[in-house]
Amino acid sequence: MSKLWQKTTNVNELVENFTVGRDREFDSQMAAFDVLGSLAHTTMLQSIGLMDTADLELVQTELKQIYKDIQAGNFTIEDNVEDVHSQVELLLTQRIGDAGKKIHSGRSRNDQVLVDLKLFFRSELQQVVNETESLFSSLVSLSEKHRDVLLPGYTHLQVAMPSSFGLWFGAYAESLTDDLEIVLAAYRITNKNPLGSAAGYGSSFPLNRTLTTQLLGFESLNYNVVYAQMGRGKTERIIAQAISSLAATLAKMAMDQCLYLSQNFAFVSYPENLTTGSSIMPHKKNPDVWEIMRGKCNRLQALPNDVAMMTTNLPSGYHRELQLLKELLFPAFTELRNCLHMAKFMLQHIEVKADILNDPKYAYLFSVEEVNRMVLNGTPFRDAYKQVGLAIEQGDFNPEKTVRHTHEGSIGNLGNEQITAAFDALLGKFQFNKTEAAISKLVS
Amino acid sequence: MSKLWQKTTNVNELVENFTVGRDREFDSQMAAFDVLGSLAHTTMLQSIGLMDTADLELVQTELKQIYKDIQAGNFTIEDNVEDVHSQVELLLTQRIGDAGKKIHSGRSRNDQVLVDLKLFFRSELQQVVNETESLFSSLVSLSEKHRDVLLPGYTHLQVAMPSSFGLWFGAYAESLTDDLEIVLAAYRITNKNPLGSAAGYGSSFPLNRTLTTQLLGFESLNYNVVYAQMGRGKTERIIAQAISSLAATLAKMAMDQCLYLSQNFAFVSYPENLTTGSSIMPHKKNPDVWEIMRGKCNRLQALPNDVAMMTTNLPSGYHRELQLLKELLFPAFTELRNCLHMAKFMLQHIEVKADILNDPKYAYLFSVEEVNRMVLNGTPFRDAYKQVGLAIEQGDFNPEKTVRHTHEGSIGNLGNEQITAAFDALLGKFQFNKTEAAISKLVS
Amino acid sequence: MSKLWQKTTNVNELVENFTVGRDREFDSQMAAFDVLGSLAHTTMLQSIGLMDTADLELVQTELKQIYKDIQAGNFTIEDNVEDVHSQVELLLTQRIGDAGKKIHSGRSRNDQVLVDLKLFFRSELQQVVNETESLFSSLVSLSEKHRDVLLPGYTHLQVAMPSSFGLWFGAYAESLTDDLEIVLAAYRITNKNPLGSAAGYGSSFPLNRTLTTQLLGFESLNYNVVYAQMGRGKTERIIAQAISSLAATLAKMAMDQCLYLSQNFAFVSYPENLTTGSSIMPHKKNPDVWEIMRGKCNRLQALPNDVAMMTTNLPSGYHRELQLLKELLFPAFTELRNCLHMAKFMLQHIEVKADILNDPKYAYLFSVEEVNRMVLNGTPFRDAYKQVGLAIEQGDFNPEKTVRHTHEGSIGNLGNEQITAAFDALLGKFQFNKTEAAISKLVS
Amino acid sequence: MSKLWQKTTNVNELVENFTVGRDREFDSQMAAFDVLGSLAHTTMLQSIGLMDTADLELVQTELKQIYKDIQAGNFTIEDNVEDVHSQVELLLTQRIGDAGKKIHSGRSRNDQVLVDLKLFFRSELQQVVNETESLFSSLVSLSEKHRDVLLPGYTHLQVAMPSSFGLWFGAYAESLTDDLEIVLAAYRITNKNPLGSAAGYGSSFPLNRTLTTQLLGFESLNYNVVYAQMGRGKTERIIAQAISSLAATLAKMAMDQCLYLSQNFAFVSYPENLTTGSSIMPHKKNPDVWEIMRGKCNRLQALPNDVAMMTTNLPSGYHRELQLLKELLFPAFTELRNCLHMAKFMLQHIEVKADILNDPKYAYLFSVEEVNRMVLNGTPFRDAYKQVGLAIEQGDFNPEKTVRHTHEGSIGNLGNEQITAAFDALLGKFQFNKTEAAISKLVS
Repeated sequence: MSKLWQKTTNVNELVENFTVGRDREFDSQMAAFDVLGSLAHTTMLQSIGLMDTADLELVQTELKQIYKDIQAGNFTIEDNVEDVHSQVELLLTQRIGDAGKKIHSGRSRNDQVLVDLKLFFRSELQQVVNETESLFSSLVSLSEKHRDVLLPGYTHLQVAMPSSFGLWFGAYAESLTDDLEIVLAAYRITNKNPLGSAAGYGSSFPLNRTLTTQLLGFESLNYNVVYAQMGRGKTERIIAQAISSLAATLAKMAMDQCLYLSQNFAFVSYPENLTTGSSIMPHKKNPDVWEIMRGKCNRLQALPNDVAMMTTNLPSGYHRELQLLKELLFPAFTELRNCLHMAKFMLQHIEVKADILNDPKYAYLFSVEEVNRMVLNGTPFRDAYKQVGLAIEQGDFNPEKTVRHTHEGSIGNLGNEQITAAFDALLGKFQFNKTEAAISKLVS
Repeated sequence: MSKLWQKTTNVNELVENFTVGRDREFDSQMAAFDVLGSLAHTTMLQSIGLMDTADLELVQTELKQIYKDIQAGNFTIEDNVEDVHSQVELLLTQRIGDAGKKIHSGRSRNDQVLVDLKLFFRSELQQVVNETESLFSSLVSLSEKHRDVLLPGYTHLQVAMPSSFGLWFGAYAESLTDDLEIVLAAYRITNKNPLGSAAGYGSSFPLNRTLTTQLLGFESLNYNVVYAQMGRGKTERIIAQAISSLAATLAKMAMDQCLYLSQNFAFVSYPENLTTGSSIMPHKKNPDVWEIMRGKCNRLQALPNDVAMMTTNLPSGYHRELQLLKELLFPAFTELRNCLHMAKFMLQHIEVKADILNDPKYAYLFSVEEVNRMVLNGTPFRDAYKQVGLAIEQGDFNPEKTVRHTHEGSIGNLGNEQITAAFDALLGKFQFNKTEAAISKLVS
Repeated sequence: MSKLWQKTTNVNELVENFTVGRDREFDSQMAAFDVLGSLAHTTMLQSIGLMDTADLELVQTELKQIYKDIQAGNFTIEDNVEDVHSQVELLLTQRIGDAGKKIHSGRSRNDQVLVDLKLFFRSELQQVVNETESLFSSLVSLSEKHRDVLLPGYTHLQVAMPSSFGLWFGAYAESLTDDLEIVLAAYRITNKNPLGSAAGYGSSFPLNRTLTTQLLGFESLNYNVVYAQMGRGKTERIIAQAISSLAATLAKMAMDQCLYLSQNFAFVSYPENLTTGSSIMPHKKNPDVWEIMRGKCNRLQALPNDVAMMTTNLPSGYHRELQLLKELLFPAFTELRNCLHMAKFMLQHIEVKADILNDPKYAYLFSVEEVNRMVLNGTPFRDAYKQVGLAIEQGDFNPEKTVRHTHEGSIGNLGNEQITAAFDALLGKFQFNKTEAAISKLVS
Repeated sequence: MSKLWQKTTNVNELVENFTVGRDREFDSQMAAFDVLGSLAHTTMLQSIGLMDTADLELVQTELKQIYKDIQAGNFTIEDNVEDVHSQVELLLTQRIGDAGKKIHSGRSRNDQVLVDLKLFFRSELQQVVNETESLFSSLVSLSEKHRDVLLPGYTHLQVAMPSSFGLWFGAYAESLTDDLEIVLAAYRITNKNPLGSAAGYGSSFPLNRTLTTQLLGFESLNYNVVYAQMGRGKTERIIAQAISSLAATLAKMAMDQCLYLSQNFAFVSYPENLTTGSSIMPHKKNPDVWEIMRGKCNRLQALPNDVAMMTTNLPSGYHRELQLLKELLFPAFTELRNCLHMAKFMLQHIEVKADILNDPKYAYLFSVEEVNRMVLNGTPFRDAYKQVGLAIEQGDFNPEKTVRHTHEGSIGNLGNEQITAAFDALLGKFQFNKTEAAISKLVS
């Protein structure tokens, strides 16, 4: 494999295969971002006099063409090319000659991959946020739609208090809102420019890092060049934590779904073609989607630990294995997006059972309700408690099976409006349009 | 043990010991916050007509006294009392009779512990932020103080490029800035009021949760009552992630310190009384503090996974083992604060070695520098590269051992001012004064 | 604090507190084992001429007395003494003068703590095995006792096939058998002698490590002295894996218990004093013990990861933070033993419900059974399948609710005898009596 | 996709894609083992009268042909076929008609995949053991070859005592020996037959599970059918722990290598074509292979936790997500084998530096040695200590730089013979030949 930066001794093939591994597979997902980085870098190089205007024109025209080719799916890293950076440089050189090589001035492979990763992660996080928003809306709609359908509420997995589908769906919506806080933190940490840090120690070129920051739509920059490099692994770990937070919400929802679909609960159901079963066991509706989702999301919950294990106790400075983090993070984004998407898809078809609380095993659900009702009507608590207890003991406890909760976030006052407002306020903080505008300007 | 809420059957003693475990030990750390919760709750009860003004006056006077006792260290959970909530209620009843029992109306043990935990975590996070700020300042000062002392920069643990103590210290300062983003996310998720969610399904009392939210200085509330309960375990996991992020920064710094203190690097040193050694091996300066810090912080890095393992696949609703999370989280705060504090303490005494780069093994550090310098002076890159390569090969490479980096975040332009501005901007978002004002009003 | 080995400069008090931490608390648990190590070491020293017979006599008489004191609970590490090794040496010197100091010859603190840890872990593992054996017996008894009580078997949490309490209890017994395999591996790795490795690089003294190996009842030794030191952290990690395996079995059992105790399953029950509840909700039997056990065991499942995170990427050689592993491992043994013990205790009081399968929701359980029965009686599979399917569809499927499984490990042929034989065969491989005999000889 | 066992309603395509995922990719790796399972199962079916001899003959001839095709690489799971079991059954039915369908009698998909996994894992573990043996031999050879080349030994990363390459290489060999204990435990747990457990609750067919156990060369069986199913996830977790143990040894070795290759240590070197570098920085020899190995092995160290996170708190019985464990385990075997192989490959080319200890910074290494030497020659310890300390202080400490350690496992008596004997004894316990003989008989 020809490496543009390599000394002449050929690296042993076994070594090559072992160290490159699946890297090109992941690199090709970063191709568009690599071009964006080069567009910004060359604009900056020209601005500080390290590239002349003619070369800039030549290079950028071609880079924009390559960007279009990538978007159209016409880009592959050739077998004998080491990575995405080399492939882009190769294409450029083939088309415009030696000028193509100048895009590498004032950069090292290290900050090039850093900026590619940041741009890639930023874009992936945006897609995750979009899918989250979509699932959030579904949950709020379902919460509103089924706000009056009651459900047993459990503590210790014991039947405890009346709950409702309104509360149940709404709880997961609000859970996504809190998840979005940590996604936002990850996004902000990601959305800082490492370009110009070279191999992690800066360079003697009079780079204008503020300019590339603006051109690439970053909110700010990783100032300290040693820190810019130190951010590798750290950015991944924090993103993995954000992913794990959404995954934990989905995994819990999936567990509830599997339980509620069991014949022993039978609170919800799905059309036959969304479950699996057996013609000989017509009752069986295996919740395969929710099981697989639970498994995938629990695997994602372990992701931050995987990243931590691979990076802990590494002294400062670049180490080659940081490359392997792509194998962990890249598929995780796809998995998470698929899970968010499938959750929404399934929820669109969920059927909730009415009259669940008519089953006698749920009668005692209303004992606390009944006591509280009496208290509110003026009976002292101890007396109310005694009367209800006695009625239960004598088997003539016939509670009114309705619930009149009124406080914020209760069955009768779900608070979905406020939850939605909180979600939207967080969404606004991402300022995706600012970033999109910068990128759009860069490639046009 | 007498439980205020328990049915008459006595719980088996083995069962009691096994299930209560170390819980009272941790509960006593939450005592002050339990009183705060009761102050807010009773004010609210009176406002909705569920407590009369006389009782409120009686109860609050005594609660404030208990609060003072707790602050003065005069509070313990008695052996035969189950938990902090019962102990406070007991004290109250002993002093003011039956009125003391009314503080429990419209609440369950579940939302009482939820609000205690949120208030406790909020307070602990504030202290963590304070220690972080203090360490941050030290690092920035050291970065400025030693800005001109050069150091070898490593990639692959191989000598690569000139670096500096200015960069090294500054990198860790900037790392703390990014950590603060995730601490802020954890703080925001924590700083929401779960009070009023009862056992996780709300209640028929016409509670005013917005009022308790204001009284306790929360930024907002966990609206959905099912979500309020679901937040248990989740809040802990996200806080653990914030802790792990700071811990990861400290662990990496500790690893660098251990390496740089080794005779094979000898970049830094410490006074004898801060290291351990042996009179027979006078060269030995064992970096025990940094090793212990590395160990403690790596243990903290594993914390989010511990929390996830204990909570994953639990269906919605309360489960008793959530109580065990206190055993993980409570000591973690202390450990982290100690580590932040010790890091600052050690850094106050660090001695950095001058003239490190005079050692011949670092000569090649300047090869890239030299090439870049020639390029900036007009020599084409390939020629410069060839000339330097040749000089090295012939053994007459005598680079000028100075560095003239000027771009943002480089050796000559550290960017500490901007990094500090970013840190301070984040600090401002916590709005600690708002919370402190509310608490101060509540207890006065 | 006076350190016997320290150079004169006093270590700063902050440093001292931070680095020693809770170490003395854990060290005192190793006291008896420290004395055993010294007994073996001094016998060996005398055998190679490095201690004279009179000193040996003097030292060993006193060490045996200290051993008895420790067993009787009369031993504490004094406040101004650094660790257990120093405390033992101090007691010895106070009683027999300078001869007491000779026990340190040919040893370093490093191999002294290594051997103490190995002896401690070995003893703890033996206790774990004993508790496991006791739980195993309970499970087998319960399996036999309730062998004819049927239970629905689930796949995908959907009602699937007939199962039985015989199978359910027996499955956990067999699970413990497999767990014992990994406990045995951990035991074997533990049961090797590191004494004589000094600071991890051996010594110029003509030590006879084979002799101390025999005296301490070790099966073999950690030969290579660098490996002996490298075993620290590694031994802990593998022990943690063994612990996690038993914990995983208990956690799964606990999850089943919580589910089966829920009103939605109601397969098992417990006396009131082993659960918690509420007089107003007489149906509630909160399975607190099983929930706490699930939590504790899930925390133990995360233990190997904690150890790995604290030790990974540490180069070879001793590092101070290895000391912190005691904080993880020592309480884990207690937790695990308590959990094993409580599981047995609870199972002694479990009540299993008869006639569960009479509930109509379990009718389809027998559809596959019915098909198989017809096939065995000669009906071609497809025909049998069609007939049963049709009957179900038309609502006149009335299966015979008995099960006649005969193959190995099935409802009618549980295989508990073979499982017990396998368990016993594994037990025999530990050879505890050999170790006990050696220790008994050493202290008498 | 046509499923042989599915009811007629077609499963939604989105659902299908989401739940099947990459499963066919992993299934095709189990094809040969699926055929083995069917060979054993059909032999058994005939023995209990559930298949006639003619059908058996027909089926087995064809299964053996398919086995050969698989071995020759001529097997793929077709796009519209769900899994490996269906593909094999399809091929069979295409070739021999309806008789092919009979292989499914008395089995469910659940125990079919269980037995396939066990056979696959057993085979993979054998390959891991082979690679481990090969690396072990290399390490022992290197230890012997460089037994006299001294090296500084470190504690706290501080220069502490003389060590040697003999010790260093040998330590990793002995580490592999202990790793083999846990691999053996995993192997034994794996090497038990789950076939006949059907869907996890057994069946009414009079299966002879002992016969299939013998035919497939299993050492024993998972008796209890509920446990047989419960072993899924558990087997994977324990195997992952065995993998993690070997990985931890390799990761530590890799860390040492990266450090020792750094210019600041310079203890070892490699030919240029096994490292990467830069022509302008001729000193750079980036240890990419060791870095990538460190990363891969640290990722493998996190594997048991991933498995635990995906399986904890799942109640007993099959859950669909267990299928996802293939995605974790299958590539892990390949990674581990590659790492073991590359470690051996690199070590074949390692160059160790002589005369390391001549560097003045290592002089104090010999201070303890010198004291011990004097003690052995009769000087009281305190006097010896004082004299050496004084010499050091006055700058005239000129130790003899030789080491004469003689005890077991020390520089002068490495114990490689005993370590090798221990390794070989463990190897023997796997009894691979017994298993191989059974398989060989089954397919011939």
